[in-house]
Amino acid sequence: MTRKRSLTGIKPTGTPHLGNIIGAIKPALELSQTFDTNYFIADAHALTTVTDPDELRQHTFEVAATWLALGLDPETSVFYRQSDITEDFELAWIFNCLTPKGLMNRAHAYKGFVDAAKEAGSKEPDAQVNMGLFSYPVLMAADIILYSADVVPVGQDQKQHVEIARDIAVKFNNLYGDILTVPEPLIEKEVATLPGLDHRKMSKSYNNTISLFVSDDELHKQIKKFTTDSVEPGETRDPKDVPIFKLIEAIANEEVTGQVANNLREGNIRWGDIKELLFEQIKETFGPAREKYVELQNDRSYVDEVLVQGALRAQNQAKPLMEQVRKAVGLR
Amino acid sequence: MTRKRSLTGIKPTGTPHLGNIIGAIKPALELSQTFDTNYFIADAHALTTVTDPDELRQHTFEVAATWLALGLDPETSVFYRQSDITEDFELAWIFNCLTPKGLMNRAHAYKGFVDAAKEAGSKEPDAQVNMGLFSYPVLMAADIILYSADVVPVGQDQKQHVEIARDIAVKFNNLYGDILTVPEPLIEKEVATLPGLDHRKMSKSYNNTISLFVSDDELHKQIKKFTTDSVEPGETRDPKDVPIFKLIEAIANEEVTGQVANNLREGNIRWGDIKELLFEQIKETFGPAREKYVELQNDRSYVDEVLVQGALRAQNQAKPLMEQVRKAVGLR
Repeated sequence: MTRKRSLTGIKPTGTPHLGNIIGAIKPALELSQTFDTNYFIADAHALTTVTDPDELRQHTFEVAATWLALGLDPETSVFYRQSDITEDFELAWIFNCLTPKGLMNRAHAYKGFVDAAKEAGSKEPDAQVNMGLFSYPVLMAADIILYSADVVPVGQDQKQHVEIARDIAVKFNNLYGDILTVPEPLIEKEVATLPGLDHRKMSKSYNNTISLFVSDDELHKQIKKFTTDSVEPGETRDPKDVPIFKLIEAIANEEVTGQVANNLREGNIRWGDIKELLFEQIKETFGPAREKYVELQNDRSYVDEVLVQGALRAQNQAKPLMEQVRKAVGLR
Repeated sequence: MTRKRSLTGIKPTGTPHLGNIIGAIKPALELSQTFDTNYFIADAHALTTVTDPDELRQHTFEVAATWLALGLDPETSVFYRQSDITEDFELAWIFNCLTPKGLMNRAHAYKGFVDAAKEAGSKEPDAQVNMGLFSYPVLMAADIILYSADVVPVGQDQKQHVEIARDIAVKFNNLYGDILTVPEPLIEKEVATLPGLDHRKMSKSYNNTISLFVSDDELHKQIKKFTTDSVEPGETRDPKDVPIFKLIEAIANEEVTGQVANNLREGNIRWGDIKELLFEQIKETFGPAREKYVELQNDRSYVDEVLVQGALRAQNQAKPLMEQVRKAVGLR
């Protein structure tokens, strides 16, 4: 029996940090145990918000290197840059022609933008939305359907994208014959979000992240900045109320985690020691990944080549479908 | 000195008739005397309104054969199908990301659609507009700019398209450096519209057209249907008030035209004779074109091959620019 194909898009709009790795990247990489997997770097989507070309190139590299370092196998998975498959944009245009504007009017990201502009008192609150932002659910439908993906893992908040892609695929099939695979959303388990250095959710926008792919020294400095309070001698803590424990729990093995939990419960708490332990555990758990990242950083052309080879494989998936689509709509 | 490049798009949404040929095709073909010329069949634009694939294929063939029969030289001009140059859609996406939605809100075709829906009492008058119709000025900007066209011949009513393309090119150049050619509209001389069989403007939508590329018999039958009134013996007419005279004037040489004008003024009027004369004159003026069309109809693969070769030349124009664009925005 052939396996189903899953598809994961990765927007290169920031440097991946520990929160991304635990919350998104590791679960996404596990998909390859169950599915045939496509992973793509959504550089064309990033253009809706990024206008600095060097920033886009840098983030594209960082995303590629991070996923490869963490174990993405470009032989078993298809790993590519979105923009390398030009047919994606052609399919998006064809989809434009059968997508009612009303469907885009109801897209969450667009509505959020317009609501914010309304509140700010704008007379034409949609005027400054760029057309990329407005129509990106159509490109996203093409991203998915071009590779005949069966399932798209998404958080509950992104379910709408897959629903729009389904609407478009069904409409196309009704008009032109049963050609497109109608994708299913695969709603991800809620992953506990990691706390950042200031205990809020670890997020680029809070500037409270821990970067993994830096020198030991820098990693150490980051961890030392993790906010801790003062403890009275003998004061005990419930581990689940201790933010840094969530990091230990996410990274260390059961034995180490259990020991730290005991120490907290018994009032044997020295934040400095716990931070040192976290540092050591990160180095242990992510040692091979961090070494691999340094290698890739020193051989950018290898990363490029991986993406080029991935693009060729993605094109091989896309081209036969596009030929069918072009014939179906009358472009050939 | 190198010549400027002009670009003409042809929407394959109907069978070209005599009104199109005199009013649009012949003037467009004359551009090649002054400019390096690109002509493309806008099949991807047609998808915004045409959902019958056979109809789209048929009209694409008819447009190609008509222009070739009337003298388009695919060696000196670049003649291609829009959809054969996939980079067009990629450039349109890049342009989407820097085009404010407000610019599309003001596009004439979209506003016309919304106004009509409002009058019909729709609560969400833009909901049924398809995203192709809404965003086609962005694709049109890509159509023009991808080939670094200097001028785009347009009627006064289509000037807005070129203005939007200019806005987009200027914005891109400001953001990313001086890479794109900013096109100029070339406002076409007002061409007298030809009267159709019922004296209204000759138009597919009035079902009053004369098709040129049909058998002599069919051509004759069409012309005999031209509406004429009864004339009293000796009744005189001012030629400029006589609809069929406008056709004679557009097609016959000066001598023949002068003779018919004299006959009308002198009251020497026999509509049947004038129709026969029109028939003969069409056969004479368009004899070679009509023969060529029959040839092309019998050799569709030749027409396909011409378009494929044209697409290769268009790709050669487009690819170096797209490489520059991709680097400039950070996709490479």
